[in-house]
Amino acid sequence: MNGFVYSVPTTVYFGSDEFRHLGEEVAGLGRTVLLCYGGGSIKRTGLYDRVMGQLAEQGLQVVELSGIEPNPRIGSVREGVRLCKEHDVDVVLAVGGGSTIDCAKFVCAGARSDRDPWDWFADKTIPITDALPLVTVLTLAATGSEMDDTGVISNPELQEKQGRGARVLLPKASFLDPENSYSVPPSQTAAGSADIIAHTLEVYLTTEDDLFFLDTFMEGLLRTVVRFAPVAMRDPTNYEARANLMWASSWAINGFADGGKRHGWSAHPMEHELSAFYDITHGLGLAILLPRWMRHCLDKDPATAGKLAQLAEQVFGVTDPALTEREKAEAGIDALAAFFTDELGLASTLGEIGIGDEHFERMAKKACDGKGGTIHGFVDLEPADVVAIFEACQ
Amino acid sequence: MNGFVYSVPTTVYFGSDEFRHLGEEVAGLGRTVLLCYGGGSIKRTGLYDRVMGQLAEQGLQVVELSGIEPNPRIGSVREGVRLCKEHDVDVVLAVGGGSTIDCAKFVCAGARSDRDPWDWFADKTIPITDALPLVTVLTLAATGSEMDDTGVISNPELQEKQGRGARVLLPKASFLDPENSYSVPPSQTAAGSADIIAHTLEVYLTTEDDLFFLDTFMEGLLRTVVRFAPVAMRDPTNYEARANLMWASSWAINGFADGGKRHGWSAHPMEHELSAFYDITHGLGLAILLPRWMRHCLDKDPATAGKLAQLAEQVFGVTDPALTEREKAEAGIDALAAFFTDELGLASTLGEIGIGDEHFERMAKKACDGKGGTIHGFVDLEPADVVAIFEACQ
Repeated sequence: MNGFVYSVPTTVYFGSDEFRHLGEEVAGLGRTVLLCYGGGSIKRTGLYDRVMGQLAEQGLQVVELSGIEPNPRIGSVREGVRLCKEHDVDVVLAVGGGSTIDCAKFVCAGARSDRDPWDWFADKTIPITDALPLVTVLTLAATGSEMDDTGVISNPELQEKQGRGARVLLPKASFLDPENSYSVPPSQTAAGSADIIAHTLEVYLTTEDDLFFLDTFMEGLLRTVVRFAPVAMRDPTNYEARANLMWASSWAINGFADGGKRHGWSAHPMEHELSAFYDITHGLGLAILLPRWMRHCLDKDPATAGKLAQLAEQVFGVTDPALTEREKAEAGIDALAAFFTDELGLASTLGEIGIGDEHFERMAKKACDGKGGTIHGFVDLEPADVVAIFEACQ
Repeated sequence: MNGFVYSVPTTVYFGSDEFRHLGEEVAGLGRTVLLCYGGGSIKRTGLYDRVMGQLAEQGLQVVELSGIEPNPRIGSVREGVRLCKEHDVDVVLAVGGGSTIDCAKFVCAGARSDRDPWDWFADKTIPITDALPLVTVLTLAATGSEMDDTGVISNPELQEKQGRGARVLLPKASFLDPENSYSVPPSQTAAGSADIIAHTLEVYLTTEDDLFFLDTFMEGLLRTVVRFAPVAMRDPTNYEARANLMWASSWAINGFADGGKRHGWSAHPMEHELSAFYDITHGLGLAILLPRWMRHCLDKDPATAGKLAQLAEQVFGVTDPALTEREKAEAGIDALAAFFTDELGLASTLGEIGIGDEHFERMAKKACDGKGGTIHGFVDLEPADVVAIFEACQ
């Protein structure tokens, strides 16, 4: 069992009754604010006005970076950096989902550097040592970016989508008001929930020895998402469902579940190629890939059956003592796949979302190259494995 | 469902392979260190030498406060404060269990104040606004003081044992090396495990509406302790068992499980009177009280059966569909009581540990007075309720 360092100093204001502290929290970090947001849905919902009201109450100067894309692009980061430098911004406030927050993280870093921000993705050995302070207002339970120190940025010119992390990118404070996710449509609620499940499974599914306590934590987190995602889809203003999904999203990926595991993530590098080539919704790609990846692992290395059977038992209630470990493992994978399609209504094949096999070889190679040639994880994946998983998704 | 603020910035170095960072962490906070510890067991185990070696490597000045009692006393706090002022101490390093860490917290506060430290317990409205930085090396999985901002101090002259918290008391860093708890004898391992269970149940057992996600977390934490406490008692150098208990101890009480519950704790104020009058081991007192308190709640308010039945199902595997909710609740309480006595070998009555009924009325009144006359919690407890619970423990 490996040791680890746990340190998550982000202050989280959770719940509708805590949102009123936003203005004072931002004001404590500076006087000129870069407000980052996406396509304008926050104006339709009234959130924009509520945020601006609190900033105005504190007498803060506000500069705006709007139009941040889903799968946020390096061009938006560059524009944010330019605005920060032009207006001498002190603090960045991201209002949105993971895309907006990810973009804002690299705006924070770029504002305190003379580099082009893509440098940090092109060469991941270049350290990120300084950044403006970041505050976030979360509107979508999905990526966990509100409580972690990483982000993913796309570069359409290079057909690349790359992740990068650094301690200085961790938000100083995040505001998680479940009501701010009431307007998320069912399809995005489903995709976000699949993303939370994927983050958890990427850590849970490991052959490494680690703490049982963390397994129970992840199993509870998965049961939470399985229980409440369908509720939030049917009843978008259900506070309990939105609250459980939102807090689960942060804890799936803030580092607590990792413990001492030196795991490599598997589904994410594969999905990043799908998103880079086809600009699809990240969580949707993950939901298609996950069950096929798990089945591939089970076939390639029968020793993975134990952990997959544990997942089946603890999360999907597969407890029939007549089943073998392998049968339990398979039943658990089937239950997960059925949850994604039947409960969340997500597409189950790449064909359904317009992805053919024309780039499978190239995407597989890029996914593995990004990990040094092999994706090390629950089982090691070579490009041929990744192609086989893509093919199983057709 | 209430909102809440979550903020736990303590950095935790977990595992044997992380202990080597102690010296540099302390050196980052100052040059003169007050080393706090208890009765000297850390000298027998060699931990003292390992700590001093790291401090010497950094060239730090070390002043010592030793002999800190279980149920630490205000006299030790005062002595620590005196040493800090005399030697111009920059940083306090507590090496031990919850008693040593609790004492060190108020040494940190006292060193930056002109007050007598008991003032903060005699009048809990007096703010604690400044404190020296604190680093801890944990040797016993129990109180969770390594990752929270509170402590409990005894004043034998007044027969009082009081808790108090303040943000500035939160440790800057804590070193959790499971090997440092290998020397904890089975009886203390048992009492510490009972303490972890008590912290969790005090939050879990509530009639307030809160996040399902947090319930699953606490159920997993309880299952962890139920599984590994007996292992650590039988096999004291079992790293896996010690590691699970140690990380569970921190998370039972660091604030995460609280969510938005405005719960009042019930078993702890009752136990604090037992410890104040008889100087017994805290966890042992809790193990005797908890099942009787839960049964009293069930009898006084049948609406508590639902949560108690959930505990029985999720933690103790009481799933027989033929049982009524109340029967499940009772079976869960029985299972907890049996775990304390049969698995942990703890005393099951106050009589066994030499406590008679001579002070029941006075202790009950003090327990309730400390909470404004009534202990508000899972069910509200008046002094007559507390006397009845004490009597059930005879």
